[in-house]
Amino acid sequence: MALAHHAGARGWVPATSGNFSVRIDASDCAITASGGDKAKVAADGIIRAPISGRAHARASAEAPLHYAMYRLSPAIGAVAHVHSQPSVLASLHFAREGKVTLEGLELLKAFHGVNTHETRLNVPIFDNDQDLEALSARVEAKLKADGLGWGFLLAGHGLYAWGHDADATLRHLDAFDYLFSLILKLKGIPV
Amino acid sequence: MALAHHAGARGWVPATSGNFSVRIDASDCAITASGGDKAKVAADGIIRAPISGRAHARASAEAPLHYAMYRLSPAIGAVAHVHSQPSVLASLHFAREGKVTLEGLELLKAFHGVNTHETRLNVPIFDNDQDLEALSARVEAKLKADGLGWGFLLAGHGLYAWGHDADATLRHLDAFDYLFSLILKLKGIPV
Amino acid sequence: MALAHHAGARGWVPATSGNFSVRIDASDCAITASGGDKAKVAADGIIRAPISGRAHARASAEAPLHYAMYRLSPAIGAVAHVHSQPSVLASLHFAREGKVTLEGLELLKAFHGVNTHETRLNVPIFDNDQDLEALSARVEAKLKADGLGWGFLLAGHGLYAWGHDADATLRHLDAFDYLFSLILKLKGIPV
Amino acid sequence: MALAHHAGARGWVPATSGNFSVRIDASDCAITASGGDKAKVAADGIIRAPISGRAHARASAEAPLHYAMYRLSPAIGAVAHVHSQPSVLASLHFAREGKVTLEGLELLKAFHGVNTHETRLNVPIFDNDQDLEALSARVEAKLKADGLGWGFLLAGHGLYAWGHDADATLRHLDAFDYLFSLILKLKGIPV
Repeated sequence: MALAHHAGARGWVPATSGNFSVRIDASDCAITASGGDKAKVAADGIIRAPISGRAHARASAEAPLHYAMYRLSPAIGAVAHVHSQPSVLASLHFAREGKVTLEGLELLKAFHGVNTHETRLNVPIFDNDQDLEALSARVEAKLKADGLGWGFLLAGHGLYAWGHDADATLRHLDAFDYLFSLILKLKGIPV
Repeated sequence: MALAHHAGARGWVPATSGNFSVRIDASDCAITASGGDKAKVAADGIIRAPISGRAHARASAEAPLHYAMYRLSPAIGAVAHVHSQPSVLASLHFAREGKVTLEGLELLKAFHGVNTHETRLNVPIFDNDQDLEALSARVEAKLKADGLGWGFLLAGHGLYAWGHDADATLRHLDAFDYLFSLILKLKGIPV
Repeated sequence: MALAHHAGARGWVPATSGNFSVRIDASDCAITASGGDKAKVAADGIIRAPISGRAHARASAEAPLHYAMYRLSPAIGAVAHVHSQPSVLASLHFAREGKVTLEGLELLKAFHGVNTHETRLNVPIFDNDQDLEALSARVEAKLKADGLGWGFLLAGHGLYAWGHDADATLRHLDAFDYLFSLILKLKGIPV
Repeated sequence: MALAHHAGARGWVPATSGNFSVRIDASDCAITASGGDKAKVAADGIIRAPISGRAHARASAEAPLHYAMYRLSPAIGAVAHVHSQPSVLASLHFAREGKVTLEGLELLKAFHGVNTHETRLNVPIFDNDQDLEALSARVEAKLKADGLGWGFLLAGHGLYAWGHDADATLRHLDAFDYLFSLILKLKGIPV
């Protein structure tokens, strides 16, 4: 819930958009239900769902992407999805390259395991798709091949980010938002 | 009132501007009275007015546009008018085209009845006019001919948006603000 | 005090800058004392000073500009001075023209006496000067010659605005901030 | 703590970044410990450390730069380090010049000892470096040679600023943020 409130306060989940989840154990996660303003989500807006992906009546259509991440690595403890404008702008501006490259900036050290600004982090961009099962499969295949990293973008849609727990995921969200803003502004693109 | 407070917190109703209304029944609506900071509006700042358009001493000069919307469709339950900068900038930047075209963006799904980002939504732009009766007639004629949609712009002035109820209208306001911002920024126009 | 708090909440008085005053009677005004964060000003941060301009130990160096405005017209009931970035950017961007011209925008109606967007409002720009007595004299002469209006700019410094009372002055501040932002953004200048 | 909370409210310390310190006496300072959200720092997040630079288990890796400033002048009573976007953008945009030049702007008077906008203030830019001892030595040598001023930038990283006490340091932070924003915007770079 803290994740959702934090994102809401920053305007990252406009018009009832966005989804947040936290791993409960090896087979289940807690995830925000479909609809409602995530900035104000309370206990009854959160459901328990199996990461194997069996359908849940109140789950968001985008839940399969959360489940896919938990299946990809047992080290992932929380997943967040936001529609922050820097993320969407970066996803469209760098769509042709298929990735956003972040390098040479101190705040890269906010990502778990990064100890120097002399780092190059590639954030993959996927085409948006309303068929979430197909999209999940594409994401899973690509991340398995290229390495997990800490997030990916959906073009014209938003950002998925994760971490070992909710605090790390929140720190990664902040860092992505800050770094995407910075590189867009340096190119003269207002965010 | 929640609508007005929400809009106020976002800076959409500067300098006592903006108007909000909710349908009461087939013939009347509740609408914010003229003047005053809408971000702080209380019960005594709201009046009951007939949508047939008979004059009300404390009604805003822009009330006729609210009445016109309620007459256009019984499904419209709330109407909001704001001066948010992304709306005004979009209304001026796209004035020559006479409309803003929104397409290919996930947040289009925030509009009632839209299920995919592969949607094209045209938001008509009308010239600003201090003769509100004449302006209402122009708006009514155009929306009857082209379809209602969920909002329109007045050039150099602001946005009118509506929905089945106050919550949907709020969600539509958020979505318009977000989408206008996004397409302007992509063109390098700061909002 | 409400004026100062409002301006503080909007970031218009950074680093202890800004000054606010309200007329008490034909000969005196209440004005914020020099120094301190105006966003947090309390009763002991406000002094009573004669508008004839006799020196007051705790008066701000910029107090003479406030006094000059009260002497120019008995209808001026409050004066505000802020360093808002849209004001400063407008003052520098239009410095060569010597004025900012606002026209064709609905929010012009926020200024007292303006009833239509088909209005042209010229806001004069003066060179900044640390000799406040000399600057006051220049401002007074120019406004007497060209008409009072509702505000003027000091290049690279900020905005002075006024109204019949504190509420009108606040509304005028909001309107200037909004309109300067809008015309700069339309030219692609981020504010 | 007030310094850290103020900076947090402005978004200057994203993702647990930023450091704040206040001099206790000739040999020690109080400094925020490594990690944690500085916007929420409490008493247990602050440690006492010798400015001679002896290692402290919970000190931030960037503590040596704080110690170096206290050793440079007994008049420095507080030091702040933030990652505000205007600072980082200025550090990258002006990297080739090796300094940011601030002049002709009224808010320069927010810096201690500055009495007129007709001032030229050079803010040096240093290359970022994860070897903080080496970086401190470079900074110390340069500031000794060219004069202390009130702050310096690390390229792609952020701002260090100081003052006689915490209040002055806060005022200087506000002024740097405002002035960097202003000069970047004037060049059309969104901040």
